[in-house]
Order: sequence, then structure tokens, then C-alpha cells
Amino acid sequence: MIDIYAFATPNSIKVPIALEELELDYVLHPVNVRQGEQKKAEFIALNPNGKVPVLVDSTVASDRLVLTESAAILIYLAEKTGKLLPASGAARARVFEQLFFHASALGPAFGQAGFFQRQAAEPQPLAMQRFSTEAARTVKMLDGVLARHAFVAGEEFSIADIAHFGWFWRREFAGVSLEDTPDVARWFDAVASRPAVQRAIERVNALV
Amino acid sequence: MIDIYAFATPNSIKVPIALEELELDYVLHPVNVRQGEQKKAEFIALNPNGKVPVLVDSTVASDRLVLTESAAILIYLAEKTGKLLPASGAARARVFEQLFFHASALGPAFGQAGFFQRQAAEPQPLAMQRFSTEAARTVKMLDGVLARHAFVAGEEFSIADIAHFGWFWRREFAGVSLEDTPDVARWFDAVASRPAVQRAIERVNALV
Repeated sequence: MIDIYAFATPNSIKVPIALEELELDYVLHPVNVRQGEQKKAEFIALNPNGKVPVLVDSTVASDRLVLTESAAILIYLAEKTGKLLPASGAARARVFEQLFFHASALGPAFGQAGFFQRQAAEPQPLAMQRFSTEAARTVKMLDGVLARHAFVAGEEFSIADIAHFGWFWRREFAGVSLEDTPDVARWFDAVASRPAVQRAIERVNALV
Repeated sequence: MIDIYAFATPNSIKVPIALEELELDYVLHPVNVRQGEQKKAEFIALNPNGKVPVLVDSTVASDRLVLTESAAILIYLAEKTGKLLPASGAARARVFEQLFFHASALGPAFGQAGFFQRQAAEPQPLAMQRFSTEAARTVKMLDGVLARHAFVAGEEFSIADIAHFGWFWRREFAGVSLEDTPDVARWFDAVASRPAVQRAIERVNALV
């Protein structure tokens, strides 16, 4: 059995999308982050870092695996099935490059831009500007990649597309629009229209 | 030939450390980020994202590989040599989990904490507090891991240790001390005293 602890968040959605694309069965357990359930002792025992998503894989022979960090879960599922991640060479390296560009640059910029635009206790104008500018810059970077390739790591759909999709699905929070980045807009529509992606969104939205 | 474009920065240092640990030959090219060389056309042609480090591997049969994102480079080198990254199972998943915990949480927190403590044009007290608190929280998280294991992803030294080391080597910038996290302090000293790590630091410091 594969259990997923998640909510309708930019990072959570990535894991059900991968599972649907890979046609793996899973049970989805809601962790209501709006009500702070990710800080409760029961969840902290699963992930001391207090973040969704978490994967618990009881199908492995040795012992059950509890794994955190959405992108690490994507790699685990891709390698478990031999899909959505090329086996070698430059094509494989490009997927990792985009996973880390998402994790270290685009994702944090979107998250902090949204926080300082919407949630800061007092206005912090320079911080708001810093992260909004960085969010727009990272989208522009990705637009350059997508002007040359169908998907973010090349001509094939991969776990790197799934990683980026999470935050683009929730881009309103970050105040990001795709008006000036037509290739990102084209890519987003293509990913959003995949049946597996639609099934995952439906399942995650039902948790709220 | 493996060419590395880098400077004495938290992310740059990771790649020479891996190359020294793996006993691979490489040529180190300085990109003086204090003088803005990472924004010059020559470097942007190599990495449109304007960040060090960059790896150029001309030893591959097909075509030369230009790769950005320090952690993606670490994975590429580990898989090229079959070292510093377990081949399968939970041990492998733990390395990816820590690489993404570093890339998405600890690294950005250290970077933003340092920026708002030292470089912001005007004081942004809530932003400074937000990122300083998050930097301390992520170090505490890692201390919990290192209380149970010799290295960040288990009992073996891996590329995840190399990734975390980069920012701990430059922790003064982020205002981070290891006084209250004895297991991180023990781990840092163990990694810093490795001959390969010392050689990499010497080579990178010589670029300045």
C-alpha cells in the first residue's frame, strides 16, 4: 500500500499527479494545513519538518519507507517504475537540473512573493518587491526553456514538469500571470489537460 | 575534460568537493561574482540563469554537456562514477530527501537571512526575523537527524553531506552559529577535516 499525506497545496499536488500518471494505487489522507494539522504531534511523528506531502510505502520488502520532500518522492516513484525520468545521459541530467531550479529558485520565490503580498503582519515593501521580481524572473527563465522544448527538461513529459506544475497551478497566490510568457502558458495548458493531472487535481481538491 | 565555472560561494564549493572526493581531474575557471561576472554575456551564454557553478563535461561520447544547479551536478558526478549515492532503496531516497531539504529550505533560508541582515537597502525587520528564524529552525531539524546518524542521509558520507556543507562553510553570512546544535557541529568538523574537502576549499579560495 502507498499512503500519501497531503492537502490542496502546490507541493502536495505533485505526488498524486505522479501516482496517477504512473497508474499506481494510493490512499490519500488529508492534512488540513489551514487548520495547522501539519504541526500536530501525530503528523510531526511522520515528518519532523512539519510539511506536506509525505509518502509511506508499505509495498517494499524490507520495511515501510516514510519519505518527505515532494521532489524526492517524485524521483522515488519514477525510479520504482522506470518512467518519467530518463535512465541516463543529458536527458536525465536536464530533469534533475529543472527539479533543483524549481526547488531552490522558482518555488521559494513564488512562496515568499505570496507571503509578502498577502500574509505579512506588516508591509515589507522591499521584501515584497524582491520576491515578486524573482518570481517573474524565474518564470521568464522557464519561458526561454519552453520556447525551445515541448517540456521543461526536453521533448518528453517528466517529473520535472510535475514539479513546476504544482506552483503554476497555485500561481495566483504569488501574483504571477502568464500573459507575457506565452510558452509557459502553452505548456501549462498542455499539462493541465492531461487526464492523469485532472484526476489528481479532483482528488486533492476533494480533501478541502 | 571537465571544466567548472565557480567562485568561493556556498553553492560553488560543492562541486570541487565532489570532484576531489571522486578523484576526477577538472579545470576550475573563476567567475568573480563580487564583480558581477556572472551577469556578463559570455557567462550568460553558458548559464542563462546567471548563477555559479556550471559544469562542462567534454568527456562524454555524444556531445559536451553543460549543466547548472549544484545539486544536479552532484547527482551527475555521483552517477557517472557510482559513488557517494547509494544505488537503490531507502538509503538512496534519504540522499534525495536531504538534497531537496537543502535546496528548498536550508539553503534559501541561509541566503535570505544573510541578505536581510547585511545587504537590504532599507531595514525590513519582519523579513529579517522570518528568515533568521527559519535558518535556525532548519539547522535544528538537521541536528535531530545528525543525533541519530553519522551523516545527513545515514551512516555513509554522500553528496547530501556535500550539499549541506556548502552553506555551513559560509554560515557566518547567515548569522548562524552551531553552539546550540552539537551534532551539526560534530558533523561539520568531521566533513571539514576530510582531505578532499580541504583540497577543494584551498582551490576555491585561490580564485578570489
